[in-house]
This record gives sequence, structure tokens and C-alpha cells, in this order.
Amino acid sequence: MLKGIPPILSPELLKILAEMGHGDELTIGDGNYPGHSLSDRVIRLDGHGVPEILDAILQVMPLDQYVEHPVALMQVMPGDTAETPIWDTYKEIVARHDERGAGAFEEVERFAFYDRTKEKSYVVIMSGETAIYANIILKKGVVKL
Amino acid sequence: MLKGIPPILSPELLKILAEMGHGDELTIGDGNYPGHSLSDRVIRLDGHGVPEILDAILQVMPLDQYVEHPVALMQVMPGDTAETPIWDTYKEIVARHDERGAGAFEEVERFAFYDRTKEKSYVVIMSGETAIYANIILKKGVVKL
Amino acid sequence: MLKGIPPILSPELLKILAEMGHGDELTIGDGNYPGHSLSDRVIRLDGHGVPEILDAILQVMPLDQYVEHPVALMQVMPGDTAETPIWDTYKEIVARHDERGAGAFEEVERFAFYDRTKEKSYVVIMSGETAIYANIILKKGVVKL
Amino acid sequence: MLKGIPPILSPELLKILAEMGHGDELTIGDGNYPGHSLSDRVIRLDGHGVPEILDAILQVMPLDQYVEHPVALMQVMPGDTAETPIWDTYKEIVARHDERGAGAFEEVERFAFYDRTKEKSYVVIMSGETAIYANIILKKGVVKL
Amino acid sequence: MLKGIPPILSPELLKILAEMGHGDELTIGDGNYPGHSLSDRVIRLDGHGVPEILDAILQVMPLDQYVEHPVALMQVMPGDTAETPIWDTYKEIVARHDERGAGAFEEVERFAFYDRTKEKSYVVIMSGETAIYANIILKKGVVKL
Amino acid sequence: MLKGIPPILSPELLKILAEMGHGDELTIGDGNYPGHSLSDRVIRLDGHGVPEILDAILQVMPLDQYVEHPVALMQVMPGDTAETPIWDTYKEIVARHDERGAGAFEEVERFAFYDRTKEKSYVVIMSGETAIYANIILKKGVVKL
Amino acid sequence: MLKGIPPILSPELLKILAEMGHGDELTIGDGNYPGHSLSDRVIRLDGHGVPEILDAILQVMPLDQYVEHPVALMQVMPGDTAETPIWDTYKEIVARHDERGAGAFEEVERFAFYDRTKEKSYVVIMSGETAIYANIILKKGVVKL
Amino acid sequence: MLKGIPPILSPELLKILAEMGHGDELTIGDGNYPGHSLSDRVIRLDGHGVPEILDAILQVMPLDQYVEHPVALMQVMPGDTAETPIWDTYKEIVARHDERGAGAFEEVERFAFYDRTKEKSYVVIMSGETAIYANIILKKGVVKL
Amino acid sequence: MLKGIPPILSPELLKILAEMGHGDELTIGDGNYPGHSLSDRVIRLDGHGVPEILDAILQVMPLDQYVEHPVALMQVMPGDTAETPIWDTYKEIVARHDERGAGAFEEVERFAFYDRTKEKSYVVIMSGETAIYANIILKKGVVKL
Amino acid sequence: MLKGIPPILSPELLKILAEMGHGDELTIGDGNYPGHSLSDRVIRLDGHGVPEILDAILQVMPLDQYVEHPVALMQVMPGDTAETPIWDTYKEIVARHDERGAGAFEEVERFAFYDRTKEKSYVVIMSGETAIYANIILKKGVVKL
Repeated sequence: MLKGIPPILSPELLKILAEMGHGDELTIGDGNYPGHSLSDRVIRLDGHGVPEILDAILQVMPLDQYVEHPVALMQVMPGDTAETPIWDTYKEIVARHDERGAGAFEEVERFAFYDRTKEKSYVVIMSGETAIYANIILKKGVVKL
Repeated sequence: MLKGIPPILSPELLKILAEMGHGDELTIGDGNYPGHSLSDRVIRLDGHGVPEILDAILQVMPLDQYVEHPVALMQVMPGDTAETPIWDTYKEIVARHDERGAGAFEEVERFAFYDRTKEKSYVVIMSGETAIYANIILKKGVVKL
Repeated sequence: MLKGIPPILSPELLKILAEMGHGDELTIGDGNYPGHSLSDRVIRLDGHGVPEILDAILQVMPLDQYVEHPVALMQVMPGDTAETPIWDTYKEIVARHDERGAGAFEEVERFAFYDRTKEKSYVVIMSGETAIYANIILKKGVVKL
Repeated sequence: MLKGIPPILSPELLKILAEMGHGDELTIGDGNYPGHSLSDRVIRLDGHGVPEILDAILQVMPLDQYVEHPVALMQVMPGDTAETPIWDTYKEIVARHDERGAGAFEEVERFAFYDRTKEKSYVVIMSGETAIYANIILKKGVVKL
Repeated sequence: MLKGIPPILSPELLKILAEMGHGDELTIGDGNYPGHSLSDRVIRLDGHGVPEILDAILQVMPLDQYVEHPVALMQVMPGDTAETPIWDTYKEIVARHDERGAGAFEEVERFAFYDRTKEKSYVVIMSGETAIYANIILKKGVVKL
Repeated sequence: MLKGIPPILSPELLKILAEMGHGDELTIGDGNYPGHSLSDRVIRLDGHGVPEILDAILQVMPLDQYVEHPVALMQVMPGDTAETPIWDTYKEIVARHDERGAGAFEEVERFAFYDRTKEKSYVVIMSGETAIYANIILKKGVVKL
Repeated sequence: MLKGIPPILSPELLKILAEMGHGDELTIGDGNYPGHSLSDRVIRLDGHGVPEILDAILQVMPLDQYVEHPVALMQVMPGDTAETPIWDTYKEIVARHDERGAGAFEEVERFAFYDRTKEKSYVVIMSGETAIYANIILKKGVVKL
Repeated sequence: MLKGIPPILSPELLKILAEMGHGDELTIGDGNYPGHSLSDRVIRLDGHGVPEILDAILQVMPLDQYVEHPVALMQVMPGDTAETPIWDTYKEIVARHDERGAGAFEEVERFAFYDRTKEKSYVVIMSGETAIYANIILKKGVVKL
Repeated sequence: MLKGIPPILSPELLKILAEMGHGDELTIGDGNYPGHSLSDRVIRLDGHGVPEILDAILQVMPLDQYVEHPVALMQVMPGDTAETPIWDTYKEIVARHDERGAGAFEEVERFAFYDRTKEKSYVVIMSGETAIYANIILKKGVVKL
Repeated sequence: MLKGIPPILSPELLKILAEMGHGDELTIGDGNYPGHSLSDRVIRLDGHGVPEILDAILQVMPLDQYVEHPVALMQVMPGDTAETPIWDTYKEIVARHDERGAGAFEEVERFAFYDRTKEKSYVVIMSGETAIYANIILKKGVVKL
């Protein structure tokens, strides 16, 4: 642990977040996300929900200021009547760290979301989140010292 | 995640617990425990307290039935007036899984505790526990099928 | 070994099953399956039949609830008069863990089956099964806590 | 699998047995044996009993003809009233492969047995044997072509 | 060395042969075969001729019963007047282990042979064979216990 | 780079500082320190002076509150008339982060200093510091959240 | 450190620069450059600006004498009104080491610049530069002894 | 060093030359050749000229007897007035070991030469040769015992 | 294979012999020698007798000219009536390469021989030799160019 | 290659020399030195004499200014009448880089020399030097910028 850094960020995760640059992406997967088959670089945060991870990451990592939607959610599949109340929580958390708030979000179709993780995520963080459609992609912005 | 297995147990931790045999030991360290300098095999569970980890482990791993004290706590240093209320929590948790309950515990002097981790722990689990004197050593027992 | 977990599941296999997510696949090959040339991740369970492995896996891993056929068998080749009584055993085992039972199965042509293992299986489990056409692919479902 | 070789011997185990020379030892541990903390070279045969493994090994590996007792059992601890019927099975199996039969066996005190594994076993084979005091050490003899 | 297993089969080669499944191929190259640039998995048997290796392999590994020609030779190049008496030896050896004998052989054009090794051989065995056009590909069959 | 974290701390160094626990030590070596022969874990910060590194580390890592002297300097060798003005800079920096200020320092004889690095430092940080007797050892304290 | 070699060049960087040959390229990224996702070979020089790194490299490495523009800058994006005063500094530094001076520079569109790093840079050097559009690619020339 | 083997051939190079088979190629690069970016297998012979390396290699390795031009030089670029006196030296050396002498040489355009190294050379040997257009590719022949 | 080098010397063995210096030792073990448990560096030459290996090695490696007995044999154990006719063959082979002939030999007690391999042999070569007491240690001499 | 750096210093050697600090030692061995059995870190400069290597190293690395004898030679063995004219060359070379010249040398008994390499040399450089008693140990000094 270190002073002033959220304790949920493991040493390895801290390293990876620091390595990422402008435009790099990461995926936070829920407990059923197939992260290991989509990426060779996986950080496990078993037993934690996505909201606490999201909030901790945004304390040290800015969202991309150069794109309109630096946050992506997995779209509810057509015909699926599932509700996604956790998205509201995500939007509140983002709003605390980025003035665009809910405006920073876009939705991505399920299999396109998998492909985007596979092709573009520098790391996949595996949470123990039990809510559905709870996966989220973040695009890192420019850190201003 | 798997059915019927506590989700806080990461895949790697599950593997390690299954590899351990009768008499092997593990240490669950608090957030300030120097686990990485005491062992080459460390599982990080950042952001979690020791009680939830302890309870999850005891759901799948029995304590050694062949020794009197299969659980060890780090003794409060002489002159230190610190209280250790978390020990009561530990004893309640152990009592739920082993009939010896509080009788299964022993206390080990601080530096002897470090040495025991170094020489005998098959793995060190690094929690984010913030209580003091919260480190604990468990000795695995015989699994009866 | 661990309490409540089928002892045939090795520590490494347990880890891999836990890493897999929704939609990931695994192949259980018979004793003559070319698993090592189809995958870099192989778990060997020499000397065991497929049924006991299948049953053990289904105790901890659900089948995909989002596809019609989460189980695939290797189709008997045209002109081959071989019988496949072991398929009935598989269907009984599946029925004990998934209400779709035999309805969960599909058949895949031999070389398409090899290709599917190569492209999509997260792991190949090599059994010592001596029955023919005994290979099977499982697609993992969502674990509900 | 190969022709004429017991299928329970995995490819990796076959390699290791072939590498061993005159006087090298191996340990077959029961399901609770702490093999991973005693050796860096472990072959897992989860789900199998010791007798079937013992018999398969002796089909390809002779016992040391130059020492009196090439087979060692873990002695029952003083005060322990446990019975060890599996020892009789072991002796029958050995008798089928080595004319010394039961005369080839010696008993070693529990902790001395652990130490011997640690210092001298080229490999530890982890079975799923559930019988107690079922661990066994074999010393390889000279292969006569 | 092990009882009943040809001593020319090294421990590593034995492991690899056992890992191979139905339909997997291997190449035995002569002393000038470019095996290391065609494959990442090479077993060297320097100083041995191909016939003794071929005979040893066929003692433990069946040829594919499901294809017409499980054995491939490198075709003499057009215009080359070289004789290949070693092929007769190969056919005699195969005939001792497979009833198809010489009928099991096919010839493959030189560069197609290289490509087949590169794309399909699970292992290349480098002999010290000095005869020309002495390279050979074997396709593993089903082991019947 | 990350928000709120001194940019001189590399991703790897950040990870290592976070891994360290209560009582673990690190050495910051000057440009001529034999760090690579004293430790297998070296972080290079070529081209930087020790003061800027020291200040950055103390922003995220507390000094040990349980020992009297958590900071060690390399003592000037007997007979050496060298001046060590950089020590004053170090004491000012420490005073900004720890109320003990100069009182937190001790001096260690040159070869004992090397030995202490070798036996106890979790990491050696190699700076490009050109001042003499500029090496320094820090002992990590308890992080209070 | 070595005599006559700029101390900011780390041992690993020195090795890499020496390995590079005529026509090989390297990228010096600013503090927000996504170097780790563009290359597997990254040298970190956290906390340093690009100019001091550029000057040090050009002391030991010539620019390509066989191409017109051995130096590439990342073009300001259309519509972006950002100023790039650091480019003047770069040109002064290059002019000290190569007679072509500013004439050696070309500009490359942002995403083409990323692609060029990915496909052609032998190494990416990650600086802590805070100026914008400060990334630079160098093409190594022939070293004349 | 070994008896009868040119001492400039390092142990690792000797191993690689012995691994190469009929038709495999190697490149000897001059001191500015970009060998490390063209190949993952590089043997460095810093400080040596190409002629002494070429002569040593040809003492143990025959040139391909089955192709017309087993030796390739990098063609002088159009418009370049450079002289290549070192080619004469190469031809004399080759003539000492292969009766085809200068007839064994062909010239390859510069970028085609790079591509051929990248696609076909089993190893790149990096010399310290300072002559220009001094790179050379050799194709190994059949070793006759 | 290479010109003028005995083909039984594998590429890896050639490399190792070349790496060895004055005074370094190697062991050639018979088919039952426990080489893998005595050394981490083992070259296997399965299926070959010791004499052909010994002769090949002495063609490229001189025996130590600075000690009286650069060759060691394993002494027949007291009470063992075994004959060792292969020693005569060894002496004839050595006599062909070193003028001291049989005078270069010493005998070492069996367990001291094992210890010497373990502590001093740079490599163990595992042959398939079936003669008894056929193990031999060679001490490398100075190569004179 | 790099500007102003002796081309005989390979990239890897340059890195190692730069990593070394005040007081660290290196050994330059002659062609028969048993460097590989004395150290895990060996740089090979086959085919070069020691003088050219020594001179190149001293161009970038100062000798220890804090000890009387930063250079060590291997003493001629008692009774050996060998001459060591190469020592004069060494002294001339050292004198060009260090004002102490021949005064910087000490002699170390042969086996003590081996032990010193084993225990204290950060690297062993293997030359192809054919002179006898030509091995030399250098102790690195403080680099003054």
C-alpha cells in the first residue's frame, strides 16, 4: 500500500495503469467476463464489484479528452429485457471525475465489445461483479502535471 | 468463478490451496505485511479484509487435526497497549468451521512469526486489512472425502 | 484436495475452469485425441474415462444458458458403422446438471470439430478414454452466486 | 498413449521415469501428501489410487537390486491405532514384479519420510489415494536390456 | 532407460510420442535435413541411422489406420539418377509392424515434403543418417489398449 | 504517468514500492554504487540526482514509525576529509515528510552499508547522483489509510 | 556509468543503441505516449524531458545519411491550434550533431506516426516530457570509425 | 576452444552451424547491418572483419552443391559509385573451399537482401567489418562424411 | 553436421565442449547412471555405447596435461566380482589421443564418483552403454592452436 | 556500433560495464580459462587477444582509485619456468589509462585467482588469447563526470 493511492489498486495494476498512455484502453469485466481468453494481460480483483474499482481507477487516471465517448458499455442484446441499474452508478462515478459525466458514455454491441477488448485493451481487470451487462471499457486521457 | 466456491478465492489461489497438503501452512497478511520479501509466492487480494478471506478459505480447507494449534496470531509486542478486537472475529469464524474454535489458536512473537512465514508458508496472501496485529497463519489438515 | 470439490479436478484444472468466462469453451479428448497439436494449454488426466471427468466439471461449471447447444459431440464419419453408446452416458450426466439434458447436444463433423478445438477451446483435457467418438466440447455458462 | 505402456503413465511421467538412473528415488503421495512443498518436480495423477500407479510404474521400472529395501513406507505414528490394509496390497503388487516381495519393504518414521522425499526424490507423484499411511518411496534399479 | 522400451528412444522423445494423437505426424530427418529451421520442436539422435529409429518408434506407435498412406518418402528430384536402396529397408521395417507393408508408403515432392514437415509435423527427429533421400514422415494411428 | 503521483516514479518502481511492507528497506545508490552486484532487483533512474528521487518516494511511502532511525547514510571513511553537504538536503527533505527530521538518520560504516543493502534491501534504485557518500537506505513504515 | 558516455543513457539503452544498425528507427515518446501498447521493447526514462535524451543519443548515434529526412515529428492535428516551441529546441540540438539541421526533419500525421512506431521502431524510449506534440522518431545512420 | 576448429567460431555459433541443414542460409553482416531488427537469432563477433569469419565458417560448412549461386552479395545501389574491393577477397576465400569460386556468387538488390535475411536466414552473424557493401549470405550444402 | 567433426557430437554437446576450459570436467554415464539427479546440464546420447562417444570427444578435446590422472573410472565395489573389460577399450582409445595412455587413469570409489560428478562435472553425457562400471570422468586440458 | 566507443565492446558487454559500480570486478580470461564453470555471466569475445580487449575497456572504465592494486594477474605456479611477456604489454596499456601504471598490479596464486573470479567477478570475458598466464582481473573505479 502507498499513501494517497486507493488500496484496491494492486501493485501490478498500478504499474499497468502508469504504463498506459493517451488513447490506450482497459476493460473492467464482471465476474463472468471471458477476460482470460480475450487477453494475455489480466489483473484479477476477485470479490470486488465494478463500481469500487472504477472509482479507484478514475482517481489516478483521466479519461480521454480527445474523443467524444471515452467510456463504453456493453449494449443489452435485442430481445433481452434485462435492466441495467448499475449503469446509473457508473455514470455518477464518472461524473465525479470528469465533467462530461453521462455524456462520456457510448454503448457497444456485445460481440463488438468482445472484439474491442481483444484488439485494443491493454489490460482486462476481472472483478467479481454479479450485476449483468456490467462490463465497461475506459480510454485513458492525457495526464496533466 | 465456479459454482459453490467462494468468489473471493481467485483461480490462482484456488490452485494453490488445492496443491497444499497435510501440514502445509499459509499466511494471510494485513495491508502492511512484508509478504513479498518473505516469500516468492504471493497472492494479492488488495482491498479485502482478513475476515472475509479467512472465512472463504475455511469453507474449502480444513485445519490440521493432528496438531493442537493449527492457527497462529502475531503476539502484541511487549509494552504495546494495542487492542486486537479482530481476533475475536477470527475466533468466531474458525468456530464455524472447526469444533476446536478459540482453542485452535496460539500466539507467536512478532519476529518469530516473520521467520515462520519465511520458512514454512507455502503462500502468503496479501489482504488490504487495516486492523493491527491482524496477520494469521493457518496449517492445513487432512481433507476427508 | 479441497473440501467439496471433486478430487479428479487437479489444482491446475480448477484454476483454468475458474478463469473461464461466459461463452468460453473446453474440449475433453479421448485417449487418442491430438490435443497437444491443437492447443498450447493441455491438462492431462491420463487413465480416466470421459464420463467421470464430465461429471466432475459439471459439478462446478454451468453450461451456457444463452445458446441452444452448449455441448458438442464429434459426428460419426459417413460410412462408419461405429456405435456410440457412451453418448447416452454423456446425456445422462448432463441431464443431472442441466435441465435441457439431451437437448443441449449438437453434433459437429470430425474436422470441423478439430478446428473448433483449435480456434475456440480455452483448454484441452486429455483423458484416457478408450471409447470411440468420445470427444466432447463444453461451453461455459453464467455462474449465478 | 503408446503401445504396451500402461496408459496411466502420463507422457511427462514416462519421461521422468526414463531419466531416472540406478539409485534414484521417487515418492508416490496420497491425496493429502504435501508434495508441492517438498519438491519442485511434481506429477499429478489426481483421482487415482496408489495401487494402480504403483503397478504401472513397476511394469517399466525395476527396483534397486543393490540395496536390501528398495521400497519405503511411512511408519504409523506411535500411539496411532490406525490400520494399514493398503500395505498388503502394495506387497502383493511388488511381489508380482520383484522376487523379494514383502522383503523389499522398510518403514520410515513420518518426519524422516518427509525429509527423505525432500532430499532424495527425483519426483513426487501426487495421487488421489484416500487410504491413510499410503505414501510410498521407490528406489530405481538397474535396467537390463 | 525403462524395461521393454527401446533404449534409443530418449526420455524426451518418449514423452513426445506419447503426447501425439491420432493423425499427428512426425518427420525423421537424415543428417542433412534442415529440421531446426522447419520446426521449433526437434529431438536430436545424432550418430544414428534412420532404420534403427524407425523400428524403435514403430514398436510403440501404430501407423494411422484411417488413411491409405500413413508413411511418406521424399521423392527423387526429376533428373536425379540417385538410387534409394534404404527405402527397401524402410518397407521391410514397416512390414514388421503394419500389415500394409510397402502399400503404406507414398512419395512427396521435395519442397512439398519440407512444407508438410513445417505445417504438420509435431516433432522432427534429427538422425545422423548418411543415405540420400532418406527422410520419412509417419502419421500416428489409434492406440488400441 | 498517473494523476497525483510524482512522474519520476516509474511504473515498475511504483509497483515495487506498493509491494513493500512494514519494515522492508530500499537503497538509493549514487551513480557509482555497485547496485547490480548487490541485488537482483534494480530500478535504474539514470540521470537523476538522489534528492528528487528521495522526495518523490517520501510523497507516497512513510518511514518506519517503529524504529528510531529509519534512514541510514554511508559513513565517511576514517581519514577521508570529504564533505557531505548533500546530507543536509536529505535532512530537509525528510523533515518535510516525517516529523523526526534529522533525528531519523543514522550512519553506517561503508562495508556494513553494502552488506545491509545485500541482505535487506527489497530494491536498489540506481540514480545518476554525482555527489559522494550520497547513498541512502530507507525503511518503510505503516501506511495509514 | 562509463567515461565519456552521457550518464542519462542507461546500460540497457546503451546496449540497444549499439545493437541498432543502418536504417533502424527509434521513437522518443513524451510522458503520455502509448509506448507500451505499440512496442514490446520499451526503455523508460521517467522524469526526463525529450531534449536532454535527444542530445545524449545524438552524441553516440549518427542520423541516417542515406535518406533525406532521418527525423520525424508528429504533425499537429488539423484544427488544433497548439503551438510546438519544443520543435525549435529539437532542431537546434540536431543541428549540433548533423549538418542538415532543420532540413533533416519531416512531419508525420498522428495515427501514421503511431503505426510507424509499431511497425518500425526497434525501441520506444518513454520520457516524462510534458510538452505536447513532443514525440520524435530517429533513423540511425552509418557509424564511421 | 576445441582442437582443429577455428577459434573465432564461438561455442554458440558452432552449435548453430551444426544445427543448420541442407539449404539453410546465414547472413554475415558488416558493423552497420541491422541484424537485430531482421532476426531473433544473432551471434555477435564484434571487432572482427568478415573475411576471417567467412574463412572459418567455410572450414566446417560446405556451400550448397544443388544451387548455382550459394553465395549472395548486396548489390551496389544504382547511382552509388562505391567500390567493393572486399568482394575480391571473398571470392578468393570461397575459391579455397569450393571449386566454383567466383562462379558461386550472385548479387541481390539491397532491400531484397534485407528481406531475404529476414525470411530465410537461420542466423545473422554481426561482424565489426567497416568495408561497405560487405554483407554476405551463405547457403549450406550437404556434409559428406 | 559439420565437416571434420565427428557426427555423434550433437550441436549442443559441441557448444558445451567448446565452452569448457582448462581443468573443467565432464562425466560420460552408462545407461543406468543417475545423471539427471546429479546435474542440471545433461546431454543425452541414447542408444550409443561409451567407447564411440569417448573417441569422438577426444578428437576435439585434449586431456589435462597438468594433472597426473585426467581420466577417472568408477572403482568396482568391494566384494563385487564383476569384470570390466570395457576399461581396456577405454585405455586403447585414450592411448590413441594422449601419449600417457593407461597411465592417465585413476579409479574412484562409487559414491565419491557420484559426488565428483555432482560437484565438478560441467556436463553429464548420458549414453546407452550396457556394460557395467562403464562410467568415466574426463578433465579437459589446454587446447594448443 | 556507436560513435566514439571501441567497436570490440559488444552491446551486451557495454551494458554490463555500465552496470558495474565502484569496487566491482571483472575477469578477462584467455582462450583456455574455465570461465563458464566459474560464472553464470560470460561475454565471449572469441578470436581476440586480451590486450585489445583490455585497452578498449580502459577507454570507458576507470580502475579503482581507492585500492592500491586494482589489477590482478595469475601468478606463475611454483616450479613453472614459463615466461609472461604479455604482462609487459598489459602494464603499458594500463599506464596509458592510469597514472599508477605497473604499480597498479598484484599477483594472485592460480587457485585463489579462480576463487576470486567465482566469488567476486561481475562478468567473465572469454577471449581467444593464446599466451599463457594471460588472465587478468580489473576492479572498477569511480567514474567522474
